[in-house]
Amino acid sequence: MQGAGHQHAGLFDGVFGRGDVNTSAGGWLQAMLDAEMALARAVERAGLVPAGAGAAVTTAVTAAAASGTIDEARLGSQAALTGNPVPALVRELTRIVPPEAAVAVHCGATSQDIIDTAAMLLARRALGLIAADLARAADTADRLAAAHRDTVMIGRTLLQQAVPVTFGLVAAGWLSSLDEAGAALRRVRELRLAVQFGGAAGTLASLGSDGPRVARLLAEELGLGVPVLPWHTDRLRIVEVAAACAGVAGALGKIARDVTLLAQPEIGEVREGNPPAELGAHRRALGPDGAAPKDTMASPDGGSVRRGGSSAMPHKRNPVAAIAILGCTRRVPGLLATLAAAAEQEHQRAAGAWHAEWEPFGDLLRLTGSASSWAVELLGRLIVDPVRMRANLEAAHGLPLAENVADLLAPALGRIEAHDVVARASVQAVAADVGLREALLSLDDVRQRLDEAGIGPDQIDSALDPAHYLGATRDFIDAAQASHRTSRTLPPAPS
Amino acid sequence: MQGAGHQHAGLFDGVFGRGDVNTSAGGWLQAMLDAEMALARAVERAGLVPAGAGAAVTTAVTAAAASGTIDEARLGSQAALTGNPVPALVRELTRIVPPEAAVAVHCGATSQDIIDTAAMLLARRALGLIAADLARAADTADRLAAAHRDTVMIGRTLLQQAVPVTFGLVAAGWLSSLDEAGAALRRVRELRLAVQFGGAAGTLASLGSDGPRVARLLAEELGLGVPVLPWHTDRLRIVEVAAACAGVAGALGKIARDVTLLAQPEIGEVREGNPPAELGAHRRALGPDGAAPKDTMASPDGGSVRRGGSSAMPHKRNPVAAIAILGCTRRVPGLLATLAAAAEQEHQRAAGAWHAEWEPFGDLLRLTGSASSWAVELLGRLIVDPVRMRANLEAAHGLPLAENVADLLAPALGRIEAHDVVARASVQAVAADVGLREALLSLDDVRQRLDEAGIGPDQIDSALDPAHYLGATRDFIDAAQASHRTSRTLPPAPS
Amino acid sequence: MQGAGHQHAGLFDGVFGRGDVNTSAGGWLQAMLDAEMALARAVERAGLVPAGAGAAVTTAVTAAAASGTIDEARLGSQAALTGNPVPALVRELTRIVPPEAAVAVHCGATSQDIIDTAAMLLARRALGLIAADLARAADTADRLAAAHRDTVMIGRTLLQQAVPVTFGLVAAGWLSSLDEAGAALRRVRELRLAVQFGGAAGTLASLGSDGPRVARLLAEELGLGVPVLPWHTDRLRIVEVAAACAGVAGALGKIARDVTLLAQPEIGEVREGNPPAELGAHRRALGPDGAAPKDTMASPDGGSVRRGGSSAMPHKRNPVAAIAILGCTRRVPGLLATLAAAAEQEHQRAAGAWHAEWEPFGDLLRLTGSASSWAVELLGRLIVDPVRMRANLEAAHGLPLAENVADLLAPALGRIEAHDVVARASVQAVAADVGLREALLSLDDVRQRLDEAGIGPDQIDSALDPAHYLGATRDFIDAAQASHRTSRTLPPAPS
Amino acid sequence: MQGAGHQHAGLFDGVFGRGDVNTSAGGWLQAMLDAEMALARAVERAGLVPAGAGAAVTTAVTAAAASGTIDEARLGSQAALTGNPVPALVRELTRIVPPEAAVAVHCGATSQDIIDTAAMLLARRALGLIAADLARAADTADRLAAAHRDTVMIGRTLLQQAVPVTFGLVAAGWLSSLDEAGAALRRVRELRLAVQFGGAAGTLASLGSDGPRVARLLAEELGLGVPVLPWHTDRLRIVEVAAACAGVAGALGKIARDVTLLAQPEIGEVREGNPPAELGAHRRALGPDGAAPKDTMASPDGGSVRRGGSSAMPHKRNPVAAIAILGCTRRVPGLLATLAAAAEQEHQRAAGAWHAEWEPFGDLLRLTGSASSWAVELLGRLIVDPVRMRANLEAAHGLPLAENVADLLAPALGRIEAHDVVARASVQAVAADVGLREALLSLDDVRQRLDEAGIGPDQIDSALDPAHYLGATRDFIDAAQASHRTSRTLPPAPS
Repeated sequence: MQGAGHQHAGLFDGVFGRGDVNTSAGGWLQAMLDAEMALARAVERAGLVPAGAGAAVTTAVTAAAASGTIDEARLGSQAALTGNPVPALVRELTRIVPPEAAVAVHCGATSQDIIDTAAMLLARRALGLIAADLARAADTADRLAAAHRDTVMIGRTLLQQAVPVTFGLVAAGWLSSLDEAGAALRRVRELRLAVQFGGAAGTLASLGSDGPRVARLLAEELGLGVPVLPWHTDRLRIVEVAAACAGVAGALGKIARDVTLLAQPEIGEVREGNPPAELGAHRRALGPDGAAPKDTMASPDGGSVRRGGSSAMPHKRNPVAAIAILGCTRRVPGLLATLAAAAEQEHQRAAGAWHAEWEPFGDLLRLTGSASSWAVELLGRLIVDPVRMRANLEAAHGLPLAENVADLLAPALGRIEAHDVVARASVQAVAADVGLREALLSLDDVRQRLDEAGIGPDQIDSALDPAHYLGATRDFIDAAQASHRTSRTLPPAPS
Repeated sequence: MQGAGHQHAGLFDGVFGRGDVNTSAGGWLQAMLDAEMALARAVERAGLVPAGAGAAVTTAVTAAAASGTIDEARLGSQAALTGNPVPALVRELTRIVPPEAAVAVHCGATSQDIIDTAAMLLARRALGLIAADLARAADTADRLAAAHRDTVMIGRTLLQQAVPVTFGLVAAGWLSSLDEAGAALRRVRELRLAVQFGGAAGTLASLGSDGPRVARLLAEELGLGVPVLPWHTDRLRIVEVAAACAGVAGALGKIARDVTLLAQPEIGEVREGNPPAELGAHRRALGPDGAAPKDTMASPDGGSVRRGGSSAMPHKRNPVAAIAILGCTRRVPGLLATLAAAAEQEHQRAAGAWHAEWEPFGDLLRLTGSASSWAVELLGRLIVDPVRMRANLEAAHGLPLAENVADLLAPALGRIEAHDVVARASVQAVAADVGLREALLSLDDVRQRLDEAGIGPDQIDSALDPAHYLGATRDFIDAAQASHRTSRTLPPAPS
Repeated sequence: MQGAGHQHAGLFDGVFGRGDVNTSAGGWLQAMLDAEMALARAVERAGLVPAGAGAAVTTAVTAAAASGTIDEARLGSQAALTGNPVPALVRELTRIVPPEAAVAVHCGATSQDIIDTAAMLLARRALGLIAADLARAADTADRLAAAHRDTVMIGRTLLQQAVPVTFGLVAAGWLSSLDEAGAALRRVRELRLAVQFGGAAGTLASLGSDGPRVARLLAEELGLGVPVLPWHTDRLRIVEVAAACAGVAGALGKIARDVTLLAQPEIGEVREGNPPAELGAHRRALGPDGAAPKDTMASPDGGSVRRGGSSAMPHKRNPVAAIAILGCTRRVPGLLATLAAAAEQEHQRAAGAWHAEWEPFGDLLRLTGSASSWAVELLGRLIVDPVRMRANLEAAHGLPLAENVADLLAPALGRIEAHDVVARASVQAVAADVGLREALLSLDDVRQRLDEAGIGPDQIDSALDPAHYLGATRDFIDAAQASHRTSRTLPPAPS
Repeated sequence: MQGAGHQHAGLFDGVFGRGDVNTSAGGWLQAMLDAEMALARAVERAGLVPAGAGAAVTTAVTAAAASGTIDEARLGSQAALTGNPVPALVRELTRIVPPEAAVAVHCGATSQDIIDTAAMLLARRALGLIAADLARAADTADRLAAAHRDTVMIGRTLLQQAVPVTFGLVAAGWLSSLDEAGAALRRVRELRLAVQFGGAAGTLASLGSDGPRVARLLAEELGLGVPVLPWHTDRLRIVEVAAACAGVAGALGKIARDVTLLAQPEIGEVREGNPPAELGAHRRALGPDGAAPKDTMASPDGGSVRRGGSSAMPHKRNPVAAIAILGCTRRVPGLLATLAAAAEQEHQRAAGAWHAEWEPFGDLLRLTGSASSWAVELLGRLIVDPVRMRANLEAAHGLPLAENVADLLAPALGRIEAHDVVARASVQAVAADVGLREALLSLDDVRQRLDEAGIGPDQIDSALDPAHYLGATRDFIDAAQASHRTSRTLPPAPS
């Protein structure tokens, strides 16, 4: 499915669009043409129209699309006449094809058959691209998990410092979420995309007894599934595509939110690096002339602006990829709700609820696609700062290890007293701005008890070592990586 | 604010767009240019740049916009570099204006100042158009209320027949909802649209002590309000515009839903007529060449298709305007939720939540605008069928008047027995497919009691006359019309 | 999982609640207790606490729950202290259990482990009940499809009459949507519900190297899955449960919408019958004393009110079950959006987004549960009126068959003229209020041409017979029924 | 409006509830009783029922409510019979009142009149409480703005450090948003809450010509507005209340998000202090026995847990109030969307859309109420750390002032070279981890040029002083405070 004609040029496309998920007028038109051409071939194969009619339609329509003679804008405005653009499109196609092939155009179909089937084609393409992006992003997360398996950092709950983790575990969490959201997406793509073909009211009456056979041939032509029966007012497929996108958006939004937080200058544990040359392809394709938007541009005053930079504030390095992801993902829940609400459709075709699906469905694919493309960039050029991670952890005075120290002392002091002693020392440490170790050893009664119990400073040091309080961190990293290797053995998503 | 360059040509624009609410790339670009030109004039008036610089910027930018040399698509793709298109736009403007005027470009501003102020300009234009449409639609509803003041029909609750109303009352309800939603919209437009101008972090630091004065001049240039302080991360204005649109959508969706239901062939109390020649202007403007999409088009087989018609099914007359309204309004709640959720913005500029507003804000204006344009058409050519209304009411065997009959009998029979008698007769009427009157009089004991009480068939007939059980219907119509006359004395929305 | 203590008694529970999906305070509390008891047993099995501690905790907590001594209201109010009720619950449990077993309480866990795992338990129970309801509803739809396989009725698109269908096909569409939504729900229930167990920041550090083993044992105790790694800030499971519920809500809302429309008195093709005695169990269980809300109640004036009835308007028969379904399902998209948006969670525990999930997750289960329970009633007592269906179809003057007639005439008249002739006759039929047959035969030139072509009135009658223009209707019904039989062979959802 | 009977005891009420916004079963019931009692008095005043009947109803119903004999749970379950609880309630009231007063019960009303009017009463109470909270929170923000008028801190855009602001400006932004959201809320409360009274289908037919007079008297009894005509299917009021709540939620969510970010340990510029004794009243009232949930509680191991604290991690101080606010506000957009979507209501009463409003409307009031109550606590005990603010600013090496330094150098070096020099020095500063001042002066060529231009280190120091680059900061603080003083002169919200 190639883009037909020019692309919608939105002023915010650099953030929300991607060149290869074309849900603009041109993308929809091409998908509708694909559906109509396939239908012409299907009815020919079913013997309902003269031999050659399907091929003639395909040839004529392909040529017209390539030469840009099908005017999207005109079709779009004529949608006002009948409530959708298909009748005008059919008229146009009838004009385009050889007269003897006209009988094969739109044969047995109703407008909804074409629009719904086109939506499935758009979804197949977009979900395939998104799945591929997720796989690439997951590969990168996998490498980050491996590289930072033992890079300790402070874990943070409720935006407060908690106990140590490793950045490898953080990356493993991202990895697992990418793999699981990707698997759900692939499942919907492979099992739930199906041709819609029911005719005026879902009976295919005008095809007599040939309807189901044509439906199967149409599905075969397009590589889509055959539904149990027409799904004109059973919108579960739409909701499932939307929900799979929302799952992806949730995973990507979480990663982007983590990056924006970790990249705060006061934390500084990660930052977005400059995009390597081989990245940014999806964004590049947005250029109207195929040219790449450069990663730097000359600034008004003669300097240059790098990605995420600011001419006025040379210290700024905005996490543009993470921000763009959040700009996309924050819009997904509202679109999901719109599509879920639209599932309540009347009788054999809905008066409004069906129409309300078209643009949101395209927007959802586009936004999820843009976010996944940004995620490939984000992870691919993420710069991790283990030194800063350790520094932030150490700046916590050892308090994140307080629980581990209390466990060390418990056999000697009893559980309650051990906790009490550590709590006292913690308060002391914060008040005096010293480490927990120093605070503990400054309590005379405690030192005496520790001496009696044979617990020396070495053991306390050991308990205060974050690497000794990581629990199952490595196990969890291993599990996420093992699961990822399994998922990689799946066949690639067909394009 | 004129459209800059060509318009986004969506394949569904005939349903969801309108030619004069331009929230496409071109519309956003023009609004941003308007903001930048006004800023250049404002800083000139404040004496911060050489005399003439503001005018020079205005002249050069206006010329560039008119000649289409500002490439929206390129700006759009370069938004990927910095997360928004303004830095690239500023670079372009700096190139366009005379060198000596360059100092006046974007002076003191940050990207968000331009985008937020542009959003306000788009809102002002769209809300003005919507308010005008609502006023026109309300005028029509007012005429319908007057014309059908005494046109009785069955009232329906829970999609079941209830008691009589008049179509005038239905129209008065529509009228009141249009007036009230319109008033709320105008209020937001007149009181809550304000310039955003705060510089990098809301202090206007680069303007020294001149910031507030420039802000006031900028607001004056644009005809927007001056906020108490920059609203970069206080998004109440955005939410209020969105909520006003949602109020309008609610009113329009209710009317459209009523029309689709009343237009069901089995009910047939209203239908959409063919659009008179003078209507459809907003839709016409959608044509890429300024030509109107005709209300009929030749059908593939040589016949013609009229608005809402079908070549295959000559009896069909789809209520296209009502369906289009519902297609628009069903999408509003999700967009509203997205914008409301985006109000949680971090510090001095949000990382994602701000970006998530741009397209939904434009979509909301566009969809509400399209729905209001359709509503003008819908009401303007609504064909009301009083004969069918009365027929449907009479087909109910008089049962909708059962309560009134019971009230008639109560003085003679006692309240409980009166109710019981009428209930028995009602069951009988349904079972025997006769009228309530006949059923009542067929009950010997009842007839005897009525005779004793001096209640004759005439009185029963009177109680069974729907016109005698309309309660405050006329009062309510009067009140809605009086309120409408008051609202009409308001000054027209400035364009 | 039995209800702990009394149930939240909402004033609208009869519409939105069901007795056996307990997501009130008591339901949540019991699920949390189940999680805590299972954890105590798991750590005992892992050898981390003295033998018998797990059993002791289970015994003591079970007894306390049964005797109602755990005060939900107090726990609820104490949630204000720490932001969730678990710390107060843990304190309470520690007080309740034998001192020597206290070490097994909440061992290794954090508050989120308990709440998230409890949410999974609530989901398992609710989804099981919903799946069972869907299966029952589908069985009924299957019977309707069989019984009305050949019951012709008019198909309706855009709320206008289109071409004939059968009610069996409508029921088959419902059947297929119930089966597919149910399959998706069961899939999530069986594959995606997993224990959450990660400790303070997802490392299970306080359990040393025993964490993963305890997690597995905990999952085993509860019959939940084991995740690859803790999912504290990977919320895909929550989104998937929500999306599955939304899929169900979409299917149910569509059915309910169809019923409300078909039950309009002017259409009258279906209505809700009185509930048979064996139904209404879920609603019955809502009674605070276990008693059933009766299906009739005495009316204030001494009469009685039946289900869906009105004392004042004896002719009314409101489709209460369908309305209640819509009341539930219309709320699902907003809750789904809230949960999807909440998936953006910071670091190792979210500051607000996690908290925002709790009540909406419960509401979503409750509303989907109530809607599915109502759907069993709705379909179980749906009264179908084939006579009215045929009457409505026949009232269309044969126009829904116009296309079929044109096909009959095409060989003789040519395609274009055939269409033209039928179109002329259709206009005539509407204008003269006669049937299409009569209108056709009244056109002299047409009758002559038909005579010449040897097409007699019998053939026209045949073409006007709806049963001859049903296309693949029977095939589609067969396919839906066959698919349903396959789905029925799946093992029942475990409770 | 006092609470009737016991309160719904949710397990999460400490976070999401507040004792005085009672939208539970008891709160709804009391509001419905208030509506019914007022109606009885209104029809008595209108002379439609015997003198004394209204008072008799009021006395009997008040007594029954006080003694708890009206069983909410039973009413709730009986809602299943008719789709709402009012018919069962009317039956109960008829039983309760003296027989001669029964005629005054529910006179002329339909179920929707009672539920909609009750919703308005709930809204009036909740909005009044919220408005009062917002006023208190704004007063505190006003004090913070004054106290920290000159407390410099780094401004942050896109979660990156930008240029200096003051905390006073941050607080002034909060102040302005609280005042504006509060004003919008008060406006809706004062102008848009109106009685709903229309009878079966909006004609008040059973009251003959007395309907409008009874409606006015009813409104007078309840202190609500009189609508132009019944608003049974014109839901703008519901949407407006919801939108006003969403505006408040947006303002509160923004403040809470700022606090969670500023309270991150690595930033540490603010933190939540312990709640002073006089605060927390709304939370206290949640205790089932009227007792306050203490701000500390004994921890399981014998220690104690303070608000926001953790027994295991003594260094943790979770910003519970801010988190609770976010937990509430994140749920508002979904509820708003549900209510906006529900505005599409059929004919004279909606089949499902109306029902879908009830619980979300109450939830929205409850959550906004809880968030506003938490906001009073949050701001009231916010601890600001000016030392940390300055330290974070200074840690930026002077780079946030780079623009100001460039402006200083521009007259001597020319604009472009000045920018270039500062940019070079900035890069140097970051690379060498020194201040911008030192980096600048270490560039030999620069020092020479500065010497020539007579620019000494003192002037550079001055340009690097954040206090000298605050632009209009004080003006904006002044403006917000002046606006607040104006808003305070408004009369207090009536209770």
